[in-house]
Amino acid sequence: MKKKLVILAAVNGGAQQDRDGAHVPITPAQIAEAAHECYKAGASVVHVHARAEDKLPTGDVKVFSEIVARIRDKCDILIQTTNGFGVRRDPKTGIPVWPSDEERLAMHKVEPRQDLFSIAAGSWDFYHPEGGYDGTVAYVNSEHLLKENIKAVLKRGASLEFEITEVSQIHKLNRYAEEGVFDRSTKNLWLDYCLGFGAMVPTVRTLALAMEDGQRMFPHWKTEVLATGHDQFPMNTVGVLMGCDIVRVGFEDNIHLPDGRTARRNYELVEAMGDISRKFGREPATVAEARSVFNIGNQARLH
Amino acid sequence: MKKKLVILAAVNGGAQQDRDGAHVPITPAQIAEAAHECYKAGASVVHVHARAEDKLPTGDVKVFSEIVARIRDKCDILIQTTNGFGVRRDPKTGIPVWPSDEERLAMHKVEPRQDLFSIAAGSWDFYHPEGGYDGTVAYVNSEHLLKENIKAVLKRGASLEFEITEVSQIHKLNRYAEEGVFDRSTKNLWLDYCLGFGAMVPTVRTLALAMEDGQRMFPHWKTEVLATGHDQFPMNTVGVLMGCDIVRVGFEDNIHLPDGRTARRNYELVEAMGDISRKFGREPATVAEARSVFNIGNQARLH
Amino acid sequence: MKKKLVILAAVNGGAQQDRDGAHVPITPAQIAEAAHECYKAGASVVHVHARAEDKLPTGDVKVFSEIVARIRDKCDILIQTTNGFGVRRDPKTGIPVWPSDEERLAMHKVEPRQDLFSIAAGSWDFYHPEGGYDGTVAYVNSEHLLKENIKAVLKRGASLEFEITEVSQIHKLNRYAEEGVFDRSTKNLWLDYCLGFGAMVPTVRTLALAMEDGQRMFPHWKTEVLATGHDQFPMNTVGVLMGCDIVRVGFEDNIHLPDGRTARRNYELVEAMGDISRKFGREPATVAEARSVFNIGNQARLH
Amino acid sequence: MKKKLVILAAVNGGAQQDRDGAHVPITPAQIAEAAHECYKAGASVVHVHARAEDKLPTGDVKVFSEIVARIRDKCDILIQTTNGFGVRRDPKTGIPVWPSDEERLAMHKVEPRQDLFSIAAGSWDFYHPEGGYDGTVAYVNSEHLLKENIKAVLKRGASLEFEITEVSQIHKLNRYAEEGVFDRSTKNLWLDYCLGFGAMVPTVRTLALAMEDGQRMFPHWKTEVLATGHDQFPMNTVGVLMGCDIVRVGFEDNIHLPDGRTARRNYELVEAMGDISRKFGREPATVAEARSVFNIGNQARLH
Repeated sequence: MKKKLVILAAVNGGAQQDRDGAHVPITPAQIAEAAHECYKAGASVVHVHARAEDKLPTGDVKVFSEIVARIRDKCDILIQTTNGFGVRRDPKTGIPVWPSDEERLAMHKVEPRQDLFSIAAGSWDFYHPEGGYDGTVAYVNSEHLLKENIKAVLKRGASLEFEITEVSQIHKLNRYAEEGVFDRSTKNLWLDYCLGFGAMVPTVRTLALAMEDGQRMFPHWKTEVLATGHDQFPMNTVGVLMGCDIVRVGFEDNIHLPDGRTARRNYELVEAMGDISRKFGREPATVAEARSVFNIGNQARLH
Repeated sequence: MKKKLVILAAVNGGAQQDRDGAHVPITPAQIAEAAHECYKAGASVVHVHARAEDKLPTGDVKVFSEIVARIRDKCDILIQTTNGFGVRRDPKTGIPVWPSDEERLAMHKVEPRQDLFSIAAGSWDFYHPEGGYDGTVAYVNSEHLLKENIKAVLKRGASLEFEITEVSQIHKLNRYAEEGVFDRSTKNLWLDYCLGFGAMVPTVRTLALAMEDGQRMFPHWKTEVLATGHDQFPMNTVGVLMGCDIVRVGFEDNIHLPDGRTARRNYELVEAMGDISRKFGREPATVAEARSVFNIGNQARLH
Repeated sequence: MKKKLVILAAVNGGAQQDRDGAHVPITPAQIAEAAHECYKAGASVVHVHARAEDKLPTGDVKVFSEIVARIRDKCDILIQTTNGFGVRRDPKTGIPVWPSDEERLAMHKVEPRQDLFSIAAGSWDFYHPEGGYDGTVAYVNSEHLLKENIKAVLKRGASLEFEITEVSQIHKLNRYAEEGVFDRSTKNLWLDYCLGFGAMVPTVRTLALAMEDGQRMFPHWKTEVLATGHDQFPMNTVGVLMGCDIVRVGFEDNIHLPDGRTARRNYELVEAMGDISRKFGREPATVAEARSVFNIGNQARLH
Repeated sequence: MKKKLVILAAVNGGAQQDRDGAHVPITPAQIAEAAHECYKAGASVVHVHARAEDKLPTGDVKVFSEIVARIRDKCDILIQTTNGFGVRRDPKTGIPVWPSDEERLAMHKVEPRQDLFSIAAGSWDFYHPEGGYDGTVAYVNSEHLLKENIKAVLKRGASLEFEITEVSQIHKLNRYAEEGVFDRSTKNLWLDYCLGFGAMVPTVRTLALAMEDGQRMFPHWKTEVLATGHDQFPMNTVGVLMGCDIVRVGFEDNIHLPDGRTARRNYELVEAMGDISRKFGREPATVAEARSVFNIGNQARLH
């Protein structure tokens, strides 16, 4: 039997707004509802950002905590918090303002605990072809932040996703492994190939070569694929065909179904992804199976 | 609207036998029936080999003519004849015996006329992971044969497929274009990326890089993808996602459905391919639409 | 006759210090002397950073002006100013401090005028394997800065180098061309493939694929190659073999001769590069020939 | 210290003739003289074809034996015999005639013994851009021939070079290893990337990707690079920069020095290769060092 596919739903993102009929969940209640719908459609992980009253991104631990609690009330889908939050702009100057490293490290104080973490593995000029963004914005992810996050996550026995937006970031992680920042054989770290955010271009060649590099350097790690806009389903499908373990869909990245129509709610993308995956004999993973993929037992939740 | 996808069914091959419950059509009547089933399932082209009484390959023009006539009786699916026929072995020595260039050029005498032609663009060690083959056999396709075929097909206003089993063959065709063997801007020649016959390995990287090379050298030509065995659907799907115009399915190459189960009849593969293609918004082309893809009008049939 | 090769000497960099016997020029007088030595050894362009009294980087227009004046006193080598200056660290917090966009745009006020400009085409985590750097530092190059620089340089009839540290930056420039920020057919912009600064890994495959992408998107632009540390000569040589127009050597990037020994002065690297290039039949370009490569006449200097 | 480079001189080839002032050695005496000159210039291996009285290729064991004896009289350079001999054409029909598998296996009867063997790892359309060839000719290398040669060479404790003209042939060897035809960890087999004979195109990208594939599948094997015509030095140099162990020069493949001029005698190419290699700190290997690279002791010669 072919290996199961973990479908991860990134339901909102930090700054993405309703668009073309697609409804982006903003409040904890809306997020929990979207997570539950995705769960019923076959997702085993939900990836969440938090929003302030003004619908713009926030790193407020209380809001994240409420999101986790509300999702848990509805179902046992695994919960992954973002580390990036999203960018705001100074209301006067228009200059982008990103959260500080300290605000971002506060994600480890969310209570009840999330199951999974994520962090962008490097800095680049963030660009989103849809969702309400204009132009590119430098998105900085410092060495300090990365190393502190790795340490904190591994200490807790949770799992951490590295969002890889350029292949060179995998080589940097390779340097970290050589420096002893983490043990290369750990199964609590994984690589997420993120295509189309202004960095790695969403082409089949780029993805294929990137995955080869990652598998050579980190043969023990699981692999996730995601892409922005209309490239979400093509790139995810190539990932599925190349044997990736996890794919991400959801309004954070894209609102388009594989045939180009717009989805109205996140779960429609989950269903579409499940349909494609099943065609190739890969059933969506259950939550229990996903726990095994991420190497987390039930204890992670009990602390 | 996204462009339509021509689904081509290669229903028998030269030497492939029934296997694991899959029924390979052998006689003209069986081939016509299979072609008709594929047509109803969404194929707009059928690719045929002929067999002698002993079920082994033949280049007999009469058998090919009967095949064409019987298919035409049932439906107007486009008909493509092989040029390779398939290999026999000397009954005493076991040494492989391929048809001569002259036998192969006799395909231009089939009556009623076929619509489309094909030719392997070079020589290599043929290997088939399924179908009753054992080991590899050198498959020779001479410069003489290629050039004569190109001339004959273009003169008739028909279309010719180059079966590309190694990227270097595209570079050879590029030399031909520079020598004036054909006009690079013609729309009656196309490239078929054939993965897994012992030559180009059926990996996503290989296909992506090959298609880039082909599109750079022959930007006006259409693109087809095929692959052997379990790689048929993954490679075809990558082709669809990269915008190829034609994909080939059928028992000549493979008997496995995308999820790994065995098909019993060729049309099941056609249906499965149509399902995948539709997911991504690409409807199977009708026969009339396929004629336009291959740049052949109705006149080709009237001669 | 094979095309000439422009050898560009980046003699100091923003923060690189003397190391292993290699002498990094710091003062305008030292820089002019190094430029002159490189000129005599076959370089037709010198790339300069300025330093303050404390030997750390500065964007002071007066220092840059003095550098240009002193080099001009000695020879007519083309002069390219950096746009990046280099990073300082806050003396209390150790946090990296980069110059502002406005300080960086002041390079257009240098008098006497420099001949050539350069700008990093995007943001990434800067890393240098040698030269006195520790760890990685996010290096931000905003869209605003890029677009203003492009406009200013093209208005002056000078030429601008895009330092490409990731292939995705070429795709961003492609977007700019589509938006009308510049005319794709201009010959006053060129691509510099920069390998090993924590971004594109210095491997033959990476360089070969990057150059293919660049040539497809910007067929009219010239091509430069550079790399850090021991990769400088291997990558530059691959560039020469692939037909690049310009290579960069010098202590900003590397102090090692092709055979691994340490150079004491910048001109030794220029000589070594010329030796290799001549082996393959490519003579170093003169200043007049380099002017033609960059599409700048003598008038650029007269304003 | 960087690893030494084995320079292998392929002095004549099967059918190549004098051209543009380059003298191709034909008789055993001429071949021995050329081998000796190459040896003095830094080659540690000579690759030889034999010719009949009419200067055309022969597989005559006596001629090969005389070649080996005469070379041994002059120096202890390692001797590698071809397995391909070269093609003749039927004087009446012009149809190419290749030697039979049995003639080719007779190379194991040469006495005194050669040190090293070689065999083309598959079939393809042979094309040579220089040397007196016209057009392409299918060159068949059967599975039977390959397997018999592998067995015979390993049994003798000698070493065998696989001439890889397409990457797919490495994958075929991988199948052989899985079938148990040889032990993947043996150090008596090596891969020779042959670019430009009508198969793998001589581009940097092609070579870089091919070498990666080979090193992944056969990490214990040594690596050789060669290419035809003007591509010989560029491709060999890329090979040197990627860490290959062996490069081949000589009039079998090319008569052009790196700068484009024509060499008159084979040793000039050896010298030019040594010059380039030394630039990058890699000294030419001595015969004793080459024996270690090929994993052959002195005993190979004693039988």
